Formats: sequence, C-alpha cells, structure tokens
Amino acid sequence: MTLDPRHRAAVEVVVPFFHVDPANVVWHGHYPEYLEAARCRLMEQIGYSYEEMAASGYLWPVVDLRIKYVRPLRYGQRLEVEAWVAEWEYRLKIAYAIRAAGNDAVLTRAHTIQVAVDAHSGQMCYETPPVLRRALGVE
Amino acid sequence: MTLDPRHRAAVEVVVPFFHVDPANVVWHGHYPEYLEAARCRLMEQIGYSYEEMAASGYLWPVVDLRIKYVRPLRYGQRLEVEAWVAEWEYRLKIAYAIRAAGNDAVLTRAHTIQVAVDAHSGQMCYETPPVLRRALGVE
Amino acid sequence: MTLDPRHRAAVEVVVPFFHVDPANVVWHGHYPEYLEAARCRLMEQIGYSYEEMAASGYLWPVVDLRIKYVRPLRYGQRLEVEAWVAEWEYRLKIAYAIRAAGNDAVLTRAHTIQVAVDAHSGQMCYETPPVLRRALGVE
Amino acid sequence: MTLDPRHRAAVEVVVPFFHVDPANVVWHGHYPEYLEAARCRLMEQIGYSYEEMAASGYLWPVVDLRIKYVRPLRYGQRLEVEAWVAEWEYRLKIAYAIRAAGNDAVLTRAHTIQVAVDAHSGQMCYETPPVLRRALGVE
Repeated sequence: MTLDPRHRAAVEVVVPFFHVDPANVVWHGHYPEYLEAARCRLMEQIGYSYEEMAASGYLWPVVDLRIKYVRPLRYGQRLEVEAWVAEWEYRLKIAYAIRAAGNDAVLTRAHTIQVAVDAHSGQMCYETPPVLRRALGVE
Repeated sequence: MTLDPRHRAAVEVVVPFFHVDPANVVWHGHYPEYLEAARCRLMEQIGYSYEEMAASGYLWPVVDLRIKYVRPLRYGQRLEVEAWVAEWEYRLKIAYAIRAAGNDAVLTRAHTIQVAVDAHSGQMCYETPPVLRRALGVE
Repeated sequence: MTLDPRHRAAVEVVVPFFHVDPANVVWHGHYPEYLEAARCRLMEQIGYSYEEMAASGYLWPVVDLRIKYVRPLRYGQRLEVEAWVAEWEYRLKIAYAIRAAGNDAVLTRAHTIQVAVDAHSGQMCYETPPVLRRALGVE
Repeated sequence: MTLDPRHRAAVEVVVPFFHVDPANVVWHGHYPEYLEAARCRLMEQIGYSYEEMAASGYLWPVVDLRIKYVRPLRYGQRLEVEAWVAEWEYRLKIAYAIRAAGNDAVLTRAHTIQVAVDAHSGQMCYETPPVLRRALGVE
C-alpha cells in the first residue's frame, strides 16, 4: 500500500442502458469496463498511460482479475470508481472500489494484477522495470 | 447481385443472456456482432479473410451500416444470420438477413458498405482492387 | 427539423481502450453505444427518459439504424456526440453527429428511428402518442 | 468436486474480431462472455437454466469472479470452454478452463460464485435451495 496521493485516482461512470440485464441489474461481465476506466485515469496520472507503456518497450497484460459483487448496480446510477496502486515491486496490483456517488457504502471490490512483458523478447519480467518505478516515484 | 453460391454464407448464433435488455429483447446495438460473424464466414469462404486482407495491403473499413429491425430477437433464440455480396465493383456492399433457425420470416435486414484503403498510402480506392475481384471470381 | 433548443443535446465520450481494434480504430459496431449516450441525455432533457417511457405505457424500440463512418475514431479521443430530434409526427427520428471535442469536422453521421408500441396490447402506434408530443412541447 | 458427468459441460467459441485489442490479443474484459456461454450450457444440461431459475422463485446473482489469464487468446482461435460444478452446498461455485480446441494446455482458469436470492423477499439464502439440489441429483 502507498500513501502517495498520485497513486490513487477515481472516475465517474453513469450506468448505460445496454449494461442492464433482464433482472434490472448490471450484468456482472460489464464491470471490467468500469475498472478499466479508473485504471486508465490512474495510469495517466502516474505518467504511464497505454501510449507511454508502448513507448517504454513493455506490454502489461492483465494476468489476474478478481471482482466481489457486494451490491448490484442499476441503470442510470452515478458511480464513483476508485483505483489505487496496491503492489508494485514484482507485478502491478491495482485495487478498486465502486460506490454510488456521494455514498460511502462499497458496492464492488476488485483487483487486477499486471506483469511486465518485454515487447521485443516476449519474456515476462520478474521485477518491475525501472520505467514504472520512476513513474511511481518509488526509486 | 450475384448467383455464385460462394458469394453467400450463413452462421448460426444463439442469443446470449448479456445481449438482452430489461425489455427482454436484444438491445439494438448488439446486432453488428451478429452481422460480423456472418460477414467473417462469408469472407473466409471467398478467400479474403481479415488475414488475407492485411496480407494484400488493403484495409477495408466499414463506411456505412444500415439495420432494419423487423421483429425483436430474444434470449436463447437460435438465429440464422445470412450474408451475401450485393455489390463489388466500386465498394463492397454486403447484405444480411436474420431469421429464427428453421423459420422463413425475416427478423432483421441489414447491409454494410466497405471501401478499400491502401494500407501504405492511406488513400481510398475508387475501384475494387484486383485481389478482391480475383477472390470473388469476377475477373 | 426543429429549432427548440431543448430538442438538441450533446454528451462527451472518451474512447476506451476496449473499443479499439487491431487496426487501431474504434470497431464500427461500438458506435451505437455512443449514440445511446447522447440519445439518453436528449430524452432526459425532453422529460421522456426510459423510466418516463415505461411509466407512460409505451415502449419505443429502435426499428432503423443508419451510421455513416466519415473518419475513424481513435483510442483516448475526446468526442462530442450530438443528438437532435429530426422527426416526431409519426415516429421518433433522432439524428446524430460525432466530432472531436473542439473541432467542427464531422467524424460520424447517424440516425435512429423509434416507434411507439403500446406496452399492454403490443400494438405499434401509427402516430406519436400525446405523451411525447407534450414532452416535446409541440402540442 | 463431483464425478457426475452431468455436472460438467463444454462449448466451443471462436474468438471474434471485435474482442481483439491493438496488442492483437483478446481484451481481458471479454472473458466473462466465454464463461457465460459455458455456464449456460452447463445449467441447461443440469436442468436449471435461466428460465428454470426464474420459474423456481430464485435469482442467482454472481457475487464473485476470478480469472487467471495464463496465455493470451487470439483472433479466430477456436476455443473449448469447459465449466463444472465445484461446490453446491451453500453457494454455487462453477470452475472453468479454456483451451485451444484439440490442445490440452490450459489458457485460462476461472471461477464464479453465485448465491440464491429469494425473488420475493430479496433475502439471500444461506443454503442451496432444494430445487437446485434436486436438479444436481445430490438429494
């Protein structure tokens, strides 16, 4: 865990009609889209966006995803999706919490784990490359 | 229009749960996925799949899409999605019909129009390149 | 066409990573999601949102969709999606234009046509029901 | 774990173009769609499909999702998605493995956990209701 405020970001998402299933709740498979929005904002804030990843010579595939659906999400709901850096030493673990805007109750908890892959060799890296450590300001 | 049997193909699609909206019908924005499945099958049959397009040095962006929703589609419905070459001289127009499997009534009509773009120059082509004419057997 | 400023609305959309295909442009089948965002905003502004439709006893299925892809959309692009009421007498036709934020060039043109269906009888209405005419202020 | 052959099912999925991202692999957020296809097939085989769930008076929301992305999936790849009942006593845990058709190497491992919710009271059930136990043949 980290206390650096740059290691935490949030986006607002409004649940679209086409994410809602016949039971009138968001289908569980759409949540990765909400996580992605918050992760992209976080990585831009850190200075290591998709473009900066590509330029740095590393790919960062997601190798693990976990979502805990605490309470359902509904059509038109205004959500705050928060993402923060939970681990960075060997792999990049980002944790997430989804809340209704203006309400502290957590509706969803999640995390993703990404590993660095050298874009040229295709080899997975067993430590976080310096480029991300510098972006995170942990070096 | 064409009578060459290779210029016509069909795929079966079963409507998944996550395509169905709170009104218990497929949300209209998912239909392009069904069309894509049939168009891919058709283009493979013709011998001009995505990989063959890329190898030929042309991109084929969709520049026009039209869908007429005649009757709704429902969860679990077994669909036959048919695609056929409707024009090829200057642009590639593919027409589509969606029916419930084993039933002649058309549930959806659609078409897409694609144009050839030279992958190197980025220039749009005003005639169908020879590679597609050969694949279609119209040369 | 209409000059009533309430008959026109716009939303901003940022192109997410998962909408971009291997050719580095938004896959054409994702555009209905952008149109939906603008149409929802427009219908809320008019006072005839999904909830208000349901409460009024009518469904409004999309029966026709047309999209003209003028220029490609790209990852991270900040889009302005504009929607306006183009016809209302017999059916609801909404027209759309997508532009890059702060740029007048139209990247996409589209329209959708919806018809009123009586939720109880399932019958299609051949004229716009009074509830929408009142919401539009055309009665 | 269970040895009843009805507690295990598989579907074939061909990776569509619109699931592939600019890195030429399936975007991680699309995998729940593949899992859903296999889970639906499994639940139909067991005799407890979505329609049968609704008729039984229970909803079965997914409350936990875990996906381990072992190797990437690619455009056009023919996948076998296998699903099996891993727990049923207190909650329904289904496990998944994705392989390339005709190849034993596991490309993806996953599980989902669903709980029964009484459709009338909205109360979560702390034991699996008899209707699912009977469908599973474990009573």
